[in-house]
Amino acid sequence: MSLTIKLHITNHLNLKLGTIKKSSYTNYNTKIRHKPIYHSNPLISTVYKPTMHVVGSSSSSCSIKSSLIDPDGGALVDLVVPESERGKKRSEAQAMPKVRLTKVDIEWVHVISEGWASPLRGFMRESEYLQTLHFNCLRMKDGSVANMSLPIVLAIDDETKERIGSSPNVGLVGPDGDLVGILRSIEIYKHHKEERIARTWGTTAPGLPYVEEAITPAGNWLVGGDLEVLNPIKYNDGLDHYRLSPKQLRKEFDRRQADAVFAFQLRNPVHNGHALLMNDTRRGLLEMGYRNPILLLHPLGGFTKADDVPLDVRMEQHSKVLEDGVLDPETTIVAIFPSPMQYAGPTEVQWHAKARVNAGANFYIVGRDPAGMGHPTEKRDLYDPDHGKKVLSMAPGLEKLNILPFKVAAYDTLEKKMAFFDPSRAEDFLFISGTKMRTYARTGENPPEGFMCPGGWTVLVNYYKGLQAEEASQQQAVLTA
Amino acid sequence: MSLTIKLHITNHLNLKLGTIKKSSYTNYNTKIRHKPIYHSNPLISTVYKPTMHVVGSSSSSCSIKSSLIDPDGGALVDLVVPESERGKKRSEAQAMPKVRLTKVDIEWVHVISEGWASPLRGFMRESEYLQTLHFNCLRMKDGSVANMSLPIVLAIDDETKERIGSSPNVGLVGPDGDLVGILRSIEIYKHHKEERIARTWGTTAPGLPYVEEAITPAGNWLVGGDLEVLNPIKYNDGLDHYRLSPKQLRKEFDRRQADAVFAFQLRNPVHNGHALLMNDTRRGLLEMGYRNPILLLHPLGGFTKADDVPLDVRMEQHSKVLEDGVLDPETTIVAIFPSPMQYAGPTEVQWHAKARVNAGANFYIVGRDPAGMGHPTEKRDLYDPDHGKKVLSMAPGLEKLNILPFKVAAYDTLEKKMAFFDPSRAEDFLFISGTKMRTYARTGENPPEGFMCPGGWTVLVNYYKGLQAEEASQQQAVLTA
Repeated sequence: MSLTIKLHITNHLNLKLGTIKKSSYTNYNTKIRHKPIYHSNPLISTVYKPTMHVVGSSSSSCSIKSSLIDPDGGALVDLVVPESERGKKRSEAQAMPKVRLTKVDIEWVHVISEGWASPLRGFMRESEYLQTLHFNCLRMKDGSVANMSLPIVLAIDDETKERIGSSPNVGLVGPDGDLVGILRSIEIYKHHKEERIARTWGTTAPGLPYVEEAITPAGNWLVGGDLEVLNPIKYNDGLDHYRLSPKQLRKEFDRRQADAVFAFQLRNPVHNGHALLMNDTRRGLLEMGYRNPILLLHPLGGFTKADDVPLDVRMEQHSKVLEDGVLDPETTIVAIFPSPMQYAGPTEVQWHAKARVNAGANFYIVGRDPAGMGHPTEKRDLYDPDHGKKVLSMAPGLEKLNILPFKVAAYDTLEKKMAFFDPSRAEDFLFISGTKMRTYARTGENPPEGFMCPGGWTVLVNYYKGLQAEEASQQQAVLTA
Repeated sequence: MSLTIKLHITNHLNLKLGTIKKSSYTNYNTKIRHKPIYHSNPLISTVYKPTMHVVGSSSSSCSIKSSLIDPDGGALVDLVVPESERGKKRSEAQAMPKVRLTKVDIEWVHVISEGWASPLRGFMRESEYLQTLHFNCLRMKDGSVANMSLPIVLAIDDETKERIGSSPNVGLVGPDGDLVGILRSIEIYKHHKEERIARTWGTTAPGLPYVEEAITPAGNWLVGGDLEVLNPIKYNDGLDHYRLSPKQLRKEFDRRQADAVFAFQLRNPVHNGHALLMNDTRRGLLEMGYRNPILLLHPLGGFTKADDVPLDVRMEQHSKVLEDGVLDPETTIVAIFPSPMQYAGPTEVQWHAKARVNAGANFYIVGRDPAGMGHPTEKRDLYDPDHGKKVLSMAPGLEKLNILPFKVAAYDTLEKKMAFFDPSRAEDFLFISGTKMRTYARTGENPPEGFMCPGGWTVLVNYYKGLQAEEASQQQAVLTA
């Protein structure tokens, strides 16, 4: 029996490149972006008629076991207060001592509340924090182990700690003063910043983006507890429809009757090398006997460093890649992973994989130097580029996940397209790094034909043009001031 | 039925305090100490006639299950080549490329060869190293987990790496040029020093003793492989009879028909507060129903920092504590733990406990700030003093070990003895830190009566007197030169 899936996408693109900023955070602390880029989620307009053969099933109207992989801890955590209780909880929260959240804190609230960090039910208490730092995993009551490699913690300063006093619960307040949620049965413990940084990043060198954004300026105490979120977290940046929760993603995989879901984490534009890899992975899964492997193309949507391409530009670029047919919309789901980026290499790649397990992915593609970056003070990669893959493959609590190592793709100058690197004719291949790609886009020079689909490339060129125009006008403003 | 154990100790003390050096390593790299302090191990001359009731046994000549706890991995590793094969292996090794070991490397060879690090069978290959750094444990083939928190690795420099070439095996050569063993099926991988230090110590601040001794001067590569040791490691310092292997200790626990073994790790002289704790622990175990709990008083014998009291002095002091009857020789075994000290706090305390499991201890006493020290560059403890205990109690692979938290003892000025601290009359208690104790000993001032047994105190005073005399004569030599 053959698989027939039809999918129609309606995109109403409304690009306003003048609003694009250098860092996804440059204007995050002052004002959330309100210019929408997409008005509709491709997913929402998906229409399909599945006809699917299920191994071991004799019925034609079968029900497929589509929850492919259990969430960590067995059940997906959902900490958004039901609508009927919100009024009561809000009044309750108003009477509690308050903790003011930063934008990054809000992203973590988002992450925890939707169950990406299942079985975590709130910001970490000290026992969870210590297990994370030392073991990269949490022991559950039944003796099983859940992977947890990054401390998900909420820092407070001395004054806030004093204000909380012996109150068992606190109200969480967003950067704009709005009541976001409640943290119950709290525990306050010391924020040993140096140790946290050293054990998470394997360095304490100055210049780690997440450290400078979220740890150095943070308070000397951490407050853990059970989280309740009064309303689903929204950013009103025109991209919220892309922010599918693990529950929504699992539902969508069910609806598409996926029998394998392979996740691709990224924080960069998709070039044809990525696409080759994703398509090749799908081909491999089909060869393994899977009938409907679905790609979760899952760009990271939280904090990123200043020279990364901002989220809205990336989402636009990813959309073009699907529009241009480089990836097949019928078997691809594009959604935003709301986590902040820590650039913590082998420690962070576990988080990236674990969160996707909670969203229902049972295959994870891991590349060279995942979540890595250059060493902040030395001329070298911060991490051994092979460590991420190795650590991930051995990580406690992730045994159930299938790790798919990334094959190296490069530009084949003979074939004039991105192809898997063939070491027997290494001289024919051109490696185009992220830096090189950005240089091309910035200077307006075209990359070799076949490096990226033209629609996607235009998005990047326009972004960098807008950036340069903005910088020039700022310089002009300084000169004329 | 009552328990009757008789034990006779014969000590032939031959103290030569003039030979005692400031650091246990000061003269370690040039010449091993040859002045014996003890000629006989109290254990060896132990004579006892056990009459013991065993629960669930109806026979009076019963055989007790005395292997109280399994070694990690199920079987105790023993890598000393049987005598009959040594000649052959030696010839074989002579033809291999050589790796020159430092004194600390030799201590690790000792540790690995006797099975303290079971299931580890040699210096770590990269997969073991990465699991240690990130997860503090190793996954076994059967899916079980063994605790392993400290990288046990052998560093080589570029030149040695080049000399090894593609040879699958290397010969290990001691600091004096003697052939020590073989490392087989080797794997060479990069020694990412900064990352190793950060993830092990939670800081990269300069001044960490083990880092300065064994990492900073070491090569940029690590070589892992399967170890074979040609002869049991001996130091010929008059203390070798105290260096009981895990196999020997397990045999001794069997021989004494211990039904509980509680280990006390230390690198300092024993004062009456320690003794109170150890005696109280035994009392507690008896109350729990154990009939013959044995204390393993287990001073660390490898590398220690310069201002710690050297091993020979500590062994002499411990011997006095037993002689003076502060600890009961009938239920105490004093032996040396051959590991180097890393001062890596919560990471290292797991190693200290795990190694004692391999030696047969099923109870482990953990104190405030175990394996901790002052921060090397800031005026504070390097670790949160409670973290060691907490991390140990959650450590993967150590679930089978009973952790006994240390009760705080201090000098009770009313009772004029060391007693458990009573917060309801805090003002009556005097805390005597290690620094304070050393100041007393150095200045010749007596600590409050009842702080330490007189025999043990005299050992310390004499050590510091010898040290001062030596320093004075060195100063004199400089002045007259």
